[in-house]
Amino acid sequence: MKREAYEQHLEALEHELVGMARWAKAKGERIVVLLEGRDTAGKGGTIKAILARINPRQCRTVALSKPSEVERGQWYFQRYVAHLPTAGEIVLFDRSWYNRAGVERVMGFATAEQVDLFLAQVPTFEKMLVDDGIRLFKYWLSCDQEAQEERFAERLADPLKRWKLSPIDIAARTKFDEYTKAREAMFAATHSDHAPWTVVDYNDQRLGRLTLIRDLLDRLPDTSVPEEEVVWPALGHSPLGEDFERLQPIPHFPLGEAERG
Amino acid sequence: MKREAYEQHLEALEHELVGMARWAKAKGERIVVLLEGRDTAGKGGTIKAILARINPRQCRTVALSKPSEVERGQWYFQRYVAHLPTAGEIVLFDRSWYNRAGVERVMGFATAEQVDLFLAQVPTFEKMLVDDGIRLFKYWLSCDQEAQEERFAERLADPLKRWKLSPIDIAARTKFDEYTKAREAMFAATHSDHAPWTVVDYNDQRLGRLTLIRDLLDRLPDTSVPEEEVVWPALGHSPLGEDFERLQPIPHFPLGEAERG
Amino acid sequence: MKREAYEQHLEALEHELVGMARWAKAKGERIVVLLEGRDTAGKGGTIKAILARINPRQCRTVALSKPSEVERGQWYFQRYVAHLPTAGEIVLFDRSWYNRAGVERVMGFATAEQVDLFLAQVPTFEKMLVDDGIRLFKYWLSCDQEAQEERFAERLADPLKRWKLSPIDIAARTKFDEYTKAREAMFAATHSDHAPWTVVDYNDQRLGRLTLIRDLLDRLPDTSVPEEEVVWPALGHSPLGEDFERLQPIPHFPLGEAERG
Amino acid sequence: MKREAYEQHLEALEHELVGMARWAKAKGERIVVLLEGRDTAGKGGTIKAILARINPRQCRTVALSKPSEVERGQWYFQRYVAHLPTAGEIVLFDRSWYNRAGVERVMGFATAEQVDLFLAQVPTFEKMLVDDGIRLFKYWLSCDQEAQEERFAERLADPLKRWKLSPIDIAARTKFDEYTKAREAMFAATHSDHAPWTVVDYNDQRLGRLTLIRDLLDRLPDTSVPEEEVVWPALGHSPLGEDFERLQPIPHFPLGEAERG
Repeated sequence: MKREAYEQHLEALEHELVGMARWAKAKGERIVVLLEGRDTAGKGGTIKAILARINPRQCRTVALSKPSEVERGQWYFQRYVAHLPTAGEIVLFDRSWYNRAGVERVMGFATAEQVDLFLAQVPTFEKMLVDDGIRLFKYWLSCDQEAQEERFAERLADPLKRWKLSPIDIAARTKFDEYTKAREAMFAATHSDHAPWTVVDYNDQRLGRLTLIRDLLDRLPDTSVPEEEVVWPALGHSPLGEDFERLQPIPHFPLGEAERG
Repeated sequence: MKREAYEQHLEALEHELVGMARWAKAKGERIVVLLEGRDTAGKGGTIKAILARINPRQCRTVALSKPSEVERGQWYFQRYVAHLPTAGEIVLFDRSWYNRAGVERVMGFATAEQVDLFLAQVPTFEKMLVDDGIRLFKYWLSCDQEAQEERFAERLADPLKRWKLSPIDIAARTKFDEYTKAREAMFAATHSDHAPWTVVDYNDQRLGRLTLIRDLLDRLPDTSVPEEEVVWPALGHSPLGEDFERLQPIPHFPLGEAERG
Repeated sequence: MKREAYEQHLEALEHELVGMARWAKAKGERIVVLLEGRDTAGKGGTIKAILARINPRQCRTVALSKPSEVERGQWYFQRYVAHLPTAGEIVLFDRSWYNRAGVERVMGFATAEQVDLFLAQVPTFEKMLVDDGIRLFKYWLSCDQEAQEERFAERLADPLKRWKLSPIDIAARTKFDEYTKAREAMFAATHSDHAPWTVVDYNDQRLGRLTLIRDLLDRLPDTSVPEEEVVWPALGHSPLGEDFERLQPIPHFPLGEAERG
Repeated sequence: MKREAYEQHLEALEHELVGMARWAKAKGERIVVLLEGRDTAGKGGTIKAILARINPRQCRTVALSKPSEVERGQWYFQRYVAHLPTAGEIVLFDRSWYNRAGVERVMGFATAEQVDLFLAQVPTFEKMLVDDGIRLFKYWLSCDQEAQEERFAERLADPLKRWKLSPIDIAARTKFDEYTKAREAMFAATHSDHAPWTVVDYNDQRLGRLTLIRDLLDRLPDTSVPEEEVVWPALGHSPLGEDFERLQPIPHFPLGEAERG
């Protein structure tokens, strides 16, 4: 979709996201949003869109690296549990415990027994969180291989994006079908009444983002909370200038005449 | 400055930031960037600009909330030390240990003795980090009260920004001079050869961001690291379509005809 | 029972406990032992008996204080999950998540809804741990009020033990029956096939300890693991003396003639 | 020294240790006790003696295992800082940051530059803690090689102690002199006015423990804090018996007639 239309719609959603955050804080709500999907699907961009307007002290992203040796010896969910929200917090998982059912399964980083145990435990694990009052949203961002190939090509060509290409990506590319199968097995085992999956088409990423955020907002209860009245007295004097004694600002980044505001 | 010029210059800087991240990873470098400044100065926006293109698994923001009772009983620096980077990481502090010399001092959350001890310990503390090889950059984002008042007014008027106004802000506004004095005392005590402060004029936030990022990049050593060759074989077959069996993508966010791409 | 007999039997058990630890390390086993019971029952002494001979880098005690505000806002189990063992570790819980069903319920620190949710979640929570391979042992140390009163009296009289008496203890004393009811409700909800409770009579604490440790050992599978051969060459020279240049040992604690070895 | 005399003196010290803990809690004091020394010197036994009577919720032992990859990339002191005490806590370090100057240096786990940097930073690091009000005690437990050899022989012969023998021990044995030199270099660099080392002769471990604890207590300021009055009403009814409905205590550990109390 077109950029302008996207930005216009997004701004409307941002008002609701800010309202959601105010509500979460006022009510002590806890919100977890999981983002899963193939490489290039658009997880990072969605997270940035959600975070853009919200207090970073209230909303965290969790993007864990590969587990340490100590973590590998623990209950699989342990290192994820450490990042669950406290009252008033919103946590966005950029990939999540579902790694075990996806990349770990397909690439052989987990045994078949480990994957089976994981798939068996997930519904129970998530039910505990949901019953405890955590609002859990699980999104699968979907894109065809055609879109994915285009994005890979873009990453390859664009020095700003080259780092996003990892050896795992290259391997994943030739295992598109295995990933499909793994995902379907994952859905079969973990799409539950208490914690359903929502698939969002991200072949158009802007449209995908709007769709996902709209869905998230629609599934929350009424989040309207009256804004606190801010009493904002007049300053009562001319604004003060800055007054540096020891240190002075460094010279500005050099601008051409026409670039100045 | 003008948006277009800003975006053009920023993109050039983003290439260098991505290079910086590649270098940090390759060499095991650790980078800490502290952002301090009055409310509305532009810390959050700067952080977003730096993060925009970098791997979130490599670059973290630290924005601590007020300390818990356990933390209040600890060595003051303890809860900050926990977030220092490991090899290859870049950590951005959105406010930092300097809280003690600013808001805590002016608002009376710390005693005079605590502030004095803090100011006495900072140079030593930072020297330990720097001698250990951490690259520490301390930025003070400066804005006049005139600019600040405009931004407060904007926050007051804009529902997307209203949450940024806290009771502390309102108090801070009438204590502009006390904050100035506190900052000057802080500079006097903590502007050192090994960890100097850099003041950046943020009366124009776009220009401020370019200035800060340019300065940061200029103060790093040569960060050029050859990009790893990515061998990218042809796919060898037509791209595969997605194939959902159990679940289908939810309907798109509704768009008007003219909004489609 | 008599001290000598106790020490003799305990030593035999210590050999098995050391064997258990060797086995856990060799096989990557994880062992969790929960100790619950009324005040004075004997939890602390049992923990010391188990730990006495085992590597402190392998075996940890977890004795959590009251939750912080952040912890109170989290999923109830979250702060306990953080302390679960990694491969090769043995963790002893001196009180545990069962606080919610005991002291928190009786003293009104948790609402009836919180207690009900807790009791409903425990079997599921514990099943996840057990299915993951954690060996979970839950002991209730039992003592009559008569024994408890004697021990309270001892604590009151003995300056070494006075600190153990807390206002909660005093309250608990007049709520003996409520605690009994709470415990029975807890057993009814959480005594499961996969994680049964074991009640041990601690009216005689020495006998209680032997009984508990014997039970723990009996319920493990064969823990025999051949000891690693230690090749221990002769020193090959006269033993060296210590040689302090800068600092000398401080004077000994003064002993009477007859006290020397 | 003789066991009886030891136990008698120890009990007197335990009263003072309990007083120390009460004082620390009442005044919000923080106490750190570091125990260093060659293998077999007696660190573990000393820790047990100090802990024996003190509330485990107030007094923790820190015995870190080898650092993870993430920790190796951090500021060396970072993982130790995480365990420093909060107000009212007593922390015992069973080995400590001084590993770098001992085993890491002699065994080549740290480079010469790392060791030099460490030795240079220690006095500053410790001064920060001390100036912050932490009471830091650093003990070197000393034993001759003759005593060490006897204890090694005992470990070799005693199945309860065999696990204490590690390959590092065997290597350390042939490097007695290198360890001596490393220790002397460590003392030269880190024995400071604000954080002096205290050497205690542990050729007789019982006597060593008494000496160390006596020294620790003597160096604290007046720790007398009036005990809180405990109002302890009579029970007002006959003591209640335990009443198990669902579960009954398991059978006692079998005792012979003569073993009963």
